[in-house]
Amino acid sequence: MQLPSRTVQRLSKYRRLLLKFQDLKEPHIFSHDLARLLQLNPVQVRRDLMLIGVSGNHRKGYNVNEIIELIGNRIDNEKGQNVALIGVGNLGKVVVRYLKTSDTKMNIIAAFDIDNKKINKCISGINCHNVCDLREMIKQYSISIAVITVPPDYVENIVQILIDAGIKGILNFTSTHIDTPPNIYLIEYDMITSLEEIAYFVNRD
Amino acid sequence: MQLPSRTVQRLSKYRRLLLKFQDLKEPHIFSHDLARLLQLNPVQVRRDLMLIGVSGNHRKGYNVNEIIELIGNRIDNEKGQNVALIGVGNLGKVVVRYLKTSDTKMNIIAAFDIDNKKINKCISGINCHNVCDLREMIKQYSISIAVITVPPDYVENIVQILIDAGIKGILNFTSTHIDTPPNIYLIEYDMITSLEEIAYFVNRD
Repeated sequence: MQLPSRTVQRLSKYRRLLLKFQDLKEPHIFSHDLARLLQLNPVQVRRDLMLIGVSGNHRKGYNVNEIIELIGNRIDNEKGQNVALIGVGNLGKVVVRYLKTSDTKMNIIAAFDIDNKKINKCISGINCHNVCDLREMIKQYSISIAVITVPPDYVENIVQILIDAGIKGILNFTSTHIDTPPNIYLIEYDMITSLEEIAYFVNRD
Repeated sequence: MQLPSRTVQRLSKYRRLLLKFQDLKEPHIFSHDLARLLQLNPVQVRRDLMLIGVSGNHRKGYNVNEIIELIGNRIDNEKGQNVALIGVGNLGKVVVRYLKTSDTKMNIIAAFDIDNKKINKCISGINCHNVCDLREMIKQYSISIAVITVPPDYVENIVQILIDAGIKGILNFTSTHIDTPPNIYLIEYDMITSLEEIAYFVNRD
């Protein structure tokens, strides 16, 4: 049964938070504490935990490691996920470093750029390739997801290359909206729209 | 009448897209084209346009400049919005440059850091101050919104300083969840959760 996207987001957030408690001795947590830490409704949290098949104990709460494992079973691809980064500028470097230092199955396997000064260099342990090699490497490494961190003017071309190369999912970090076919799962970070949204509500208090 | 956040997001996106057509001679657009360009339902688009009070013409569509102006009236603060950036690393610099080069009322008025090599320097035309000066400058410049681009270990402290200093809205770019009181409007970009969400759906096709 396919989960709604918001459920997947919450499960991912539970796990990220619980990973911090993993090394404690016999770590347990109550659903209301998990809810409070993530500013969620405790009823929702319990429903999510029930969904993934973890049961709690009235006195101790839920076993942290069990939750982490069951979330992994539910939302991860066991083999991990090969991700490509397109655009090795300041933003791209931040993304690479962050993903390399985080406990996640998201595996940045290659970076791509058009700048000769960056191609064939190594950034935070990731090799940088020519964008021209994208299609071939997407096939070779079974890359299904790309993170785009190129300047706005390059976005449209890069997206077309990615679509033609068979990419299935895109995280668009460029704050420039992209047009993708319905079979591509797209998440966009749009800094200006987010700030305008915050500004709207902040001014109404 | 306060608008729902998704409506504000859409209005912001319409405007960003339409700003590109502003300089054409007598620019007009049909609602179904606006919808298609942003992958929205045309009925929703027409409803939004009606909400802000713009009327269209069957033969020509809607006047682009009129839409832009009415959106501004509806969601902007006329005086513009003073924004502080906290954390002048690679990510922070990207944010500053992007906001400086974009057509928006979001005005990055000051940046803050704890690194002496950055304090009192100028980044893309923005002065960098010591985080210790945050409270005073928030009052002095009526800064109501902060963009946080600090490393994960610093997030909690910075957020506390911002809350104490009276900030009203936060754009959290750090991919580390923050706890804020209900009166603070918070938007969080969480790279890992977004990638895990994409991965989940990409693997189910």
